[in-house]
Amino acid sequence: MPEPATPTTRLRLDLSYDGTAFHGWADQPGQRTVQGELERALTQITRVPVRVTVAGRTDAGVHARGQVCHLDLPDAVLATIPGRSDRAPAEALVTRLEGVLPDDLVVHLAREVSDEFDARFGALWRRYRYRISDGPTAHDPLRRDVLRHRRPLDVAAMARASAPLLGEHDFLSFCRPRVGATTVRELRELTWERPGEGRADEGLVVATVVADAFCHHMVRSLVGALLGVGEGRRPESWPAEVLAARTRESATRDSAGAAPLCPPQGLTLEHVAYPPDEELAARAHLARARRGPVRSSTS
Amino acid sequence: MPEPATPTTRLRLDLSYDGTAFHGWADQPGQRTVQGELERALTQITRVPVRVTVAGRTDAGVHARGQVCHLDLPDAVLATIPGRSDRAPAEALVTRLEGVLPDDLVVHLAREVSDEFDARFGALWRRYRYRISDGPTAHDPLRRDVLRHRRPLDVAAMARASAPLLGEHDFLSFCRPRVGATTVRELRELTWERPGEGRADEGLVVATVVADAFCHHMVRSLVGALLGVGEGRRPESWPAEVLAARTRESATRDSAGAAPLCPPQGLTLEHVAYPPDEELAARAHLARARRGPVRSSTS
Repeated sequence: MPEPATPTTRLRLDLSYDGTAFHGWADQPGQRTVQGELERALTQITRVPVRVTVAGRTDAGVHARGQVCHLDLPDAVLATIPGRSDRAPAEALVTRLEGVLPDDLVVHLAREVSDEFDARFGALWRRYRYRISDGPTAHDPLRRDVLRHRRPLDVAAMARASAPLLGEHDFLSFCRPRVGATTVRELRELTWERPGEGRADEGLVVATVVADAFCHHMVRSLVGALLGVGEGRRPESWPAEVLAARTRESATRDSAGAAPLCPPQGLTLEHVAYPPDEELAARAHLARARRGPVRSSTS
Repeated sequence: MPEPATPTTRLRLDLSYDGTAFHGWADQPGQRTVQGELERALTQITRVPVRVTVAGRTDAGVHARGQVCHLDLPDAVLATIPGRSDRAPAEALVTRLEGVLPDDLVVHLAREVSDEFDARFGALWRRYRYRISDGPTAHDPLRRDVLRHRRPLDVAAMARASAPLLGEHDFLSFCRPRVGATTVRELRELTWERPGEGRADEGLVVATVVADAFCHHMVRSLVGALLGVGEGRRPESWPAEVLAARTRESATRDSAGAAPLCPPQGLTLEHVAYPPDEELAARAHLARARRGPVRSSTS
């Protein structure tokens, strides 16, 4: 790979968004997208074209709390971001973004990372949560990340039906496959609970879904299948049967309510994990950033 | 008081709303209000004019999770609310309201209560919470009930400054007085905390404010004064001095930032408490309601 003409610094951004009014993550002409709004804000601040690479390309209406992306900025550009003299340029960028981004998109943290850091391909695992209120008692109109579901759910049945799905499998039955892309994934956690008093998400039905990576529509197809069990429309063995069939057909052919894609508004990308090495490298860079004004991370 | 011409049943409703798009609780011509939407929905279902009496008349932009109101319905009307045969008419009303109310207003619970129950005058105390994110790290764009504050807050200083305000005082300095109305209130709790990991409201600055009742603007004036302390613009002794001055003037004259009314979007009415006797009466009525189809609560 040829050396870039100008020395650049790689930045990692940690961000959250309310997906309600976004047409998903990925930039699309004529649509309001998270990537589009973020790149527009970054370009407005830096006055150079900016492209970001993201950990999880969320669909329309899906939210994120722990989304991660990276971008490369020429060092000379990074130095022009004004901030207090005791702060690194990346920290100043967070403050500037706060004033430019719309209210439904927040960049919590920006830090310099090694050029080896890759938000998409460097991720170890992703954690999503799906939140449901299954009755008027638990429904909180002040939250934007909860599916309102009219029928009561059997959380214990959903938990039992989820267990056989854990591990490495071909999740073709739960994915919208892309040509040439594998649908083999390692599902590390798929748990259901109803948190008690004083806890976050009190009274809601909450699914936690962790995998090394997800294929397209996988979380929403899994949750959709398990909602059938929770409502009592499907036997507990059914999601495992859908998995074993290894075909999209098995999940969609039955018009009586087979594994529907559940609505996006209950789904939130909560956390993306990276190897500790990268964390250490990032911390080292940040520590150096606090000592000097600007430097290239290619050193 | 003369006996009503038709036997009526008193209902208690427990409700929540996202105050963002409401012009406050109280019905006003030409404005979208919580009372207006709720009475419209109740009238649509029952086909009779309905008026509700509320525990806390929240201002424009203020939210509620534990709001309580009551209404009286003619028994003959209550009997027409369709529901499953094993459910009381009040329970059927909750289901009907779910289909008619807008998404930002939820009635969690309806139950028959004694005619002695009064949502406004029978309340023992009210609890409000004011939630603030004081930096991009803690700000969650998925919540509608949090004030976004650009400066970091000293929670310990705010807690110390709050302590002398507790007890029964004339809160005139923190109220917009109404002619003929007392401004003496008993402030039972005014605490500040930053909940830790895994707890509800993790990372936010949260004020809990409990009083027997509040005069108009009291919570937002108290929080506004304490924000001055939390930002370091005011000494910790200042809120107690404002209280002792017993005049609206002391809090507003100083243009350098005295006790401003803080914005409504961080404020939520969380809970209204009633005497246990009423609770027992309500439970007894509900139990009776489950046994027979319709009866007057005036029995």
